[in-house]
Amino acid sequence: MTAPFWVLLILLLSTLPAGPVFAEKVKLDSSHWGHEAGEDCVSCHSKSSAGLASQWRESAHAEAGVNCMDCHQADRADVDAIEHEGQIIATIVSPQDCGRCHEKELAEQQGSVHAEAFAIIEDRLPALADNVGGPAMRAASCDQCHGSRVKVKGDGSLDAATWPNSGIGRINPDGSKGSCSSCHGRHRFSKAQAREPAACVRCHSGPDSPDKEVFEASKHGMIYAAQREDMNLDAPEWVAGRDYTAAPTCVTCHMGGAGKLPPSHDVGMRNVWNLNAPVSERQYLVVFEDGVKMELPESAEVPKRGSELVRPDGSSGTVKVVATPKRRRQAMSMVCLECHSKGFTQGFMDQFDSVVELFNSKFALPAREIMDALYREELLTPTPFDEPIEFTYWELWHDEGARARHGAAMMSPNHAWWEGMYVVGRSFYARFLPEARAVAGAKSPVLVDAVLAEDAAHQWLRDPGQSSPILGFGHEESH
Amino acid sequence: MTAPFWVLLILLLSTLPAGPVFAEKVKLDSSHWGHEAGEDCVSCHSKSSAGLASQWRESAHAEAGVNCMDCHQADRADVDAIEHEGQIIATIVSPQDCGRCHEKELAEQQGSVHAEAFAIIEDRLPALADNVGGPAMRAASCDQCHGSRVKVKGDGSLDAATWPNSGIGRINPDGSKGSCSSCHGRHRFSKAQAREPAACVRCHSGPDSPDKEVFEASKHGMIYAAQREDMNLDAPEWVAGRDYTAAPTCVTCHMGGAGKLPPSHDVGMRNVWNLNAPVSERQYLVVFEDGVKMELPESAEVPKRGSELVRPDGSSGTVKVVATPKRRRQAMSMVCLECHSKGFTQGFMDQFDSVVELFNSKFALPAREIMDALYREELLTPTPFDEPIEFTYWELWHDEGARARHGAAMMSPNHAWWEGMYVVGRSFYARFLPEARAVAGAKSPVLVDAVLAEDAAHQWLRDPGQSSPILGFGHEESH
Amino acid sequence: MTAPFWVLLILLLSTLPAGPVFAEKVKLDSSHWGHEAGEDCVSCHSKSSAGLASQWRESAHAEAGVNCMDCHQADRADVDAIEHEGQIIATIVSPQDCGRCHEKELAEQQGSVHAEAFAIIEDRLPALADNVGGPAMRAASCDQCHGSRVKVKGDGSLDAATWPNSGIGRINPDGSKGSCSSCHGRHRFSKAQAREPAACVRCHSGPDSPDKEVFEASKHGMIYAAQREDMNLDAPEWVAGRDYTAAPTCVTCHMGGAGKLPPSHDVGMRNVWNLNAPVSERQYLVVFEDGVKMELPESAEVPKRGSELVRPDGSSGTVKVVATPKRRRQAMSMVCLECHSKGFTQGFMDQFDSVVELFNSKFALPAREIMDALYREELLTPTPFDEPIEFTYWELWHDEGARARHGAAMMSPNHAWWEGMYVVGRSFYARFLPEARAVAGAKSPVLVDAVLAEDAAHQWLRDPGQSSPILGFGHEESH
Repeated sequence: MTAPFWVLLILLLSTLPAGPVFAEKVKLDSSHWGHEAGEDCVSCHSKSSAGLASQWRESAHAEAGVNCMDCHQADRADVDAIEHEGQIIATIVSPQDCGRCHEKELAEQQGSVHAEAFAIIEDRLPALADNVGGPAMRAASCDQCHGSRVKVKGDGSLDAATWPNSGIGRINPDGSKGSCSSCHGRHRFSKAQAREPAACVRCHSGPDSPDKEVFEASKHGMIYAAQREDMNLDAPEWVAGRDYTAAPTCVTCHMGGAGKLPPSHDVGMRNVWNLNAPVSERQYLVVFEDGVKMELPESAEVPKRGSELVRPDGSSGTVKVVATPKRRRQAMSMVCLECHSKGFTQGFMDQFDSVVELFNSKFALPAREIMDALYREELLTPTPFDEPIEFTYWELWHDEGARARHGAAMMSPNHAWWEGMYVVGRSFYARFLPEARAVAGAKSPVLVDAVLAEDAAHQWLRDPGQSSPILGFGHEESH
Repeated sequence: MTAPFWVLLILLLSTLPAGPVFAEKVKLDSSHWGHEAGEDCVSCHSKSSAGLASQWRESAHAEAGVNCMDCHQADRADVDAIEHEGQIIATIVSPQDCGRCHEKELAEQQGSVHAEAFAIIEDRLPALADNVGGPAMRAASCDQCHGSRVKVKGDGSLDAATWPNSGIGRINPDGSKGSCSSCHGRHRFSKAQAREPAACVRCHSGPDSPDKEVFEASKHGMIYAAQREDMNLDAPEWVAGRDYTAAPTCVTCHMGGAGKLPPSHDVGMRNVWNLNAPVSERQYLVVFEDGVKMELPESAEVPKRGSELVRPDGSSGTVKVVATPKRRRQAMSMVCLECHSKGFTQGFMDQFDSVVELFNSKFALPAREIMDALYREELLTPTPFDEPIEFTYWELWHDEGARARHGAAMMSPNHAWWEGMYVVGRSFYARFLPEARAVAGAKSPVLVDAVLAEDAAHQWLRDPGQSSPILGFGHEESH
Repeated sequence: MTAPFWVLLILLLSTLPAGPVFAEKVKLDSSHWGHEAGEDCVSCHSKSSAGLASQWRESAHAEAGVNCMDCHQADRADVDAIEHEGQIIATIVSPQDCGRCHEKELAEQQGSVHAEAFAIIEDRLPALADNVGGPAMRAASCDQCHGSRVKVKGDGSLDAATWPNSGIGRINPDGSKGSCSSCHGRHRFSKAQAREPAACVRCHSGPDSPDKEVFEASKHGMIYAAQREDMNLDAPEWVAGRDYTAAPTCVTCHMGGAGKLPPSHDVGMRNVWNLNAPVSERQYLVVFEDGVKMELPESAEVPKRGSELVRPDGSSGTVKVVATPKRRRQAMSMVCLECHSKGFTQGFMDQFDSVVELFNSKFALPAREIMDALYREELLTPTPFDEPIEFTYWELWHDEGARARHGAAMMSPNHAWWEGMYVVGRSFYARFLPEARAVAGAKSPVLVDAVLAEDAAHQWLRDPGQSSPILGFGHEESH
């Protein structure tokens, strides 16, 4: 490493967002803590919904004298303000609210891939959630991870179609994005709990992002399971290599401090690749002067510091700092290096990159090229998911290809191969190509097979002479 | 809530079944405990199968002076009585045996969906277990969860085709139903162990009832994983909101005490919906004077207290009490309310109900109507599973639809959507409908497509103009 | 049991392999321990990659005074020797290195199915890993479990295409096979950690060998989850029935001591069946005088003690001892018997064997016969995986059939049935047979259907009169 990268990382995160002013509400200064009405809340909630109060009693908030009203107090003008037992409160405590004290964490979280989780999928929802499922699904499924756009009813109560919700990219009534309680369960808001692998499982599991399953089937997960007691999970600070070395959890690599690498609530900052894309690309992370962040593919022109750039939402911003893919990889490697040698770390990263590049070149790009051609030739309607091949293609990159890439990223050979690239290969050769040929009909040689002819990786298909005992055949075995 | 519902719940469970009399055997009165031969059992089993004795030594039974013979003692006339080291014993200790002391638990368990688990599937077994699999499968698969009909051989030993078995609806040699050791592992019979989520995993996991996976991927599971130490799992009583508030486990919501809601070994009592049905219906729970219980769909005529009703087994019974779907929902909500507000609880229930209703109306009812038509027109044989579409239809409701419904019921967005309704939609549009059209041939417009035309939810299929970036296409992305 | 079988088991393992001599390196004699340069390693690695040193500090090695150099010291002539901070070391510490002290464990491990894990799949790799996936996949997938053939570059460093790797059958630069750190995580090398079920999960999970999932969904897993604290996992010795009785883990049954049964690092010795084969067979374990081991199907001629036999690699060996399937079953049953009765144990084994035999006779043998015919008639090319039916057939035995067999072997009814034999039946009837008929065309009656006609188990297909409520139909339910 040429320069102390962690200095850059701190720079990256030093912009505090300019949010609305919340006069008379709790602030970082501890003299603000301990709203006089707080005792009444606790007293009543020791009988009604007693769990709320007892979880709070175990929290650092309780210990510091921060009470219910300190967080839930609202202004009468707030769109979601309600009167409750004589107090004006809001049900939702947004990141903006938490950020009155937790300034650094808010600054890091805003603009992160977590905070933007709803924005990222919003344009997919009509075709996928609504057509394939149904609008009634959103509340219990997509929104629970990605966040809902919370709707406040006339009386200040929250619309059940959008709440309860603790999705990580929730659009809150105050306009802020995200939900701290997504990871730090209410009302204990425990650091230790959020450092557990289980903290991420609700969203990072399943066919498209099986990070729970990948971790459990990795050596990291194997050691964690055995030595959780040595992980010092409830330490005030939790720096890998200093406060614990038994094993990493999700937080360790993606958010945690490690040696001189500072911790950050921007969970995507250390990720080089966009793994959940049809074709993965290495990405620049662009941070603007106003705190907004943006991912840019490596193939794009590199933005210069101080230049103006138009952002996805149409606004324009001044580039403050850019983290190149190389820098992001260095940051992630700093975590690995707390327990592994340079050769080990580099070797692992090479193995991971090779899987992503193989997926791209052998499967993702040809499949996209074929799909493009079928749409262009109007052999498929433009509507997504009204033809079976569209599901096959979607699952090829969104699920099967994601599993291969996540498996390689976090060292589960089962996911890299059996749940990942093996299924990609099977789906590509035994489902996608036959379906594409059926759609293309007489145009198959041009629209489908010509695409494969370009790549030596598919040459084995045209060389059908080799036998192998792989299927359980051969004179010895089958007779 | 209009009246103290827990009073009704206690009423619901106050009927002790009139079982056979077991003279001279252990009873609730502690003067019966400590059979004189018990020491000999323990002495020998400290060498042979030593685990049996050492697990017992850790048990509340050992502490109270209840020994091996107190439970295993049999009458010579019992069909499964064997002589073992000079004593007449039975290998199986049935719920009827346990109920000599654990009267309340037996009364609750008898007639519950757990106790009836074998009866529920018995008529499915020939077509499914035997044809699709093979009769030899039953012992190691269906029977291990649902219970076997235990067969005693001439010498009093148990037929390996039916035992070992601890299925929850086992038909025991004494005629009683169930197996306490299904949840309370032999021979420790630990309360704490049965309160763990792991207690339910053996049966409540997998493609058709992934409750283990759903719980692990819910916020409840996330908190449990981090704060198991705070769960007070080995408390004598275990009332949510009083003895613990960190998180719920399966037992908490489905069986446990919560506030004033009494605990119960009738695991299905608080469930409004039959989620594992082709089409879900809200259900009445009818309890008869003789302790028998019966589920009735909301669409049926509501039985009145004191009326006579014919039951599935042909017998007639006098209705003692009926729990309406609304009452059952109130009972379940009483658990939620120990930690959540009324608005939160109601909002969650609305989100859950919406998913069930969407599944019913958009997929389950049309699919059933189409299948009905294909059978009626003799386009399919009456034999189940001899045509591929029958597997597609079966998995649509039994597996994929069940996952969507269970996922929504217990807050795993991954199961509600990616493992659930997304797969339902894909299977319905890309597999079931094409297969149905192929079977229907020229009759497709009437037998298949006319069914969909009735529902606006499928209108998007006939409006193929909308494009979307969902599949990874568009000028920006694909070039 | 007729004779003390554990005497035979000890005999089986008494051959120490004749490996190369490592002069001046650490040996079992403790006077060799504590290389003088070791302190320097620890001092520097307390700053750089600090986790290495801190994990070592917690280890039994540290306690005994065995340091970094004692294990990593190399001879300049070693192919993978590198100079590092003035010392000649090798990055990889092979089983041969560990075996200088851990002689017994090495003797057991060599020749085991674990040590041979790379050899077992080597001839499958071109068709499966390279064609279906791509050569770049090997490092991150197959090799991570089965082991890589480690390639040393000219400068002594390790090729990233083959390392980092801790696959259990790794071919090390010194020619030895395996990787102790596959189960005993570096650099703590904890016994307790390797006794956890999690130790095996990295490789024994997923569609083809879901042993993690099976265990978690078994009664053994249920009890383990609740009573891990009682498992005495860090005991110096860990003999089931003596040091713990709460529950077994993977190690308990497959490697652990139990009563008089000695522990062994030959993980496959107690397995009667080859469950991961197209058709399972009971197997002899043949141990040669030179320590080599070989599995032979029960259908082969039984080798006699002292006879000469040609081995898979072409070499010849003198048979030292043969463990018959019956003896292997006895060994495994000795574990069961520590907690279960003879009747229970035998009944369980019968249930398990029945599932394997059903899979063989009803599905595996007919499917193989049909595939054989399709190849013989040149209706399929000899190249594996270039036709869709080859994936269907592969998954039938390699994945679905494996799940059924593993599920029955370790008591997960979900895997035995829903993830296993149900899927086998569905795939066989609704996918494999239709695909085979399509390939066979006019020859179907002879090549496909005649095969099924031989077996009464498929008779139900030709008797399509029976109806059943299984699919959710019938007058009551559908109207």
